Amino acid sequence: MSMALHEVIAESIREQIRVGELTIGSALPSESQLCERWKSSRGPVRQALATLRAEGVITGGSGKPPVVCTTSIPQPFDSLLSYSAWARAIGRSAGQRTLELALRPADPLVAPKLGIDEGARVVQVLRLRYLDGERAMLERATFVEHVGRLLFDFDCDSGSIWAYLQSRGVNFSTASHIIDAVAADPLDSEHLEVTEGSPLLRQQRTARTADGEVIEYHDDRYLPGMVSFSLENTLDVRTSLMRNAKP
Amino acid sequence: MSMALHEVIAESIREQIRVGELTIGSALPSESQLCERWKSSRGPVRQALATLRAEGVITGGSGKPPVVCTTSIPQPFDSLLSYSAWARAIGRSAGQRTLELALRPADPLVAPKLGIDEGARVVQVLRLRYLDGERAMLERATFVEHVGRLLFDFDCDSGSIWAYLQSRGVNFSTASHIIDAVAADPLDSEHLEVTEGSPLLRQQRTARTADGEVIEYHDDRYLPGMVSFSLENTLDVRTSLMRNAKP
Repeated sequence: MSMALHEVIAESIREQIRVGELTIGSALPSESQLCERWKSSRGPVRQALATLRAEGVITGGSGKPPVVCTTSIPQPFDSLLSYSAWARAIGRSAGQRTLELALRPADPLVAPKLGIDEGARVVQVLRLRYLDGERAMLERATFVEHVGRLLFDFDCDSGSIWAYLQSRGVNFSTASHIIDAVAADPLDSEHLEVTEGSPLLRQQRTARTADGEVIEYHDDRYLPGMVSFSLENTLDVRTSLMRNAKP
Repeated sequence: MSMALHEVIAESIREQIRVGELTIGSALPSESQLCERWKSSRGPVRQALATLRAEGVITGGSGKPPVVCTTSIPQPFDSLLSYSAWARAIGRSAGQRTLELALRPADPLVAPKLGIDEGARVVQVLRLRYLDGERAMLERATFVEHVGRLLFDFDCDSGSIWAYLQSRGVNFSTASHIIDAVAADPLDSEHLEVTEGSPLLRQQRTARTADGEVIEYHDDRYLPGMVSFSLENTLDVRTSLMRNAKP
């Protein structure tokens, strides 16, 4: 997959911030310097800077020179979707033990999440996930039947379901995430080895293809000592994280 | 505070999505139509579209016409900072009962969050927050002394501390948010009326001025049935929410 020049330029600047070559308050090279360095016309350079401004990575614009204003680098799509990809990206090791792989009728809880009829067949995977060998999360994944059946040819103990499904041609395109806190139920309690009722951080997500078909629903429950979510925002930049009131 | 034309254009398109005039899959007017409508040159229109693309609100670019791809509209700065502003924005009513307003030395927990010495004076506010009259959150706020002292002239039962401090010239510019789950401690238990040890959703945040001075630290604990956080993301757009492993 080739990247457009403006994406290459933006990613190179993100990388310079990530490794600390550019720190908060550093000025970026001028537009002309960036054009020269990338053998580019003004268009791609300006588009790269507009992207970084919209992400809240740099300030400036309208004549003011762009300056780095955060070291918090916006995350690629897979870092919120794939536990394995995320662990690798932060230099930690992900592990998993599959507790169950089942074909069964969708229950009243998951059917509406997938937009399918109750009783339609789904494939469900229950896995305990580890971080550097320590238990970190209990993963309940539900796939629509035609996607989930691909997992019968896969060793779910071996690694990323997300990477495997992509290799089989499943195209994840958009995802919705909901983060809340829940009390450990008996299943959580058994596998995460915590008292029933104790706090867990939950990330629910649904993923869709480019055609809008919902193909998976996850209910991932983290031990609160192991994982948190964070975000930086600024006055000038909108953020995609919403706070929601239960209706 | 006046907005630049490109911001006005972007906000008008967000508003059309918010109210349902533009739905998922709708094509935006062409660049020339937008230029005509806003009596604008190409520059501001393109900058508005680049912002919406970077926010993940529209797809397209490089010749493809822009199409609306989400109804999840990125949030302005105050919606993650001000509980009162957030409640108003979603058409609910925020309430508060002040339990304590205190000037005291910073304890070992909050001093590092504010980047001040342990024992330096801070102003702390403890408030129980309501949503439509129902208890929703216990707010522990700590302010550096010179900011917090402004609160001695304010009735913390009357509404938004954030709005009041802004009216007194305090300029919040950037903020960091950390979301995790915690067990209710005795104070939470007493005021939120839950059993000790039961799950709460916590949002910690630190807010800074444009000069980078950290002026407040919040530890807000929500009843899990009342509030969640959510996010939509797509393959093409980076998101600012990070998943973090505890070290």
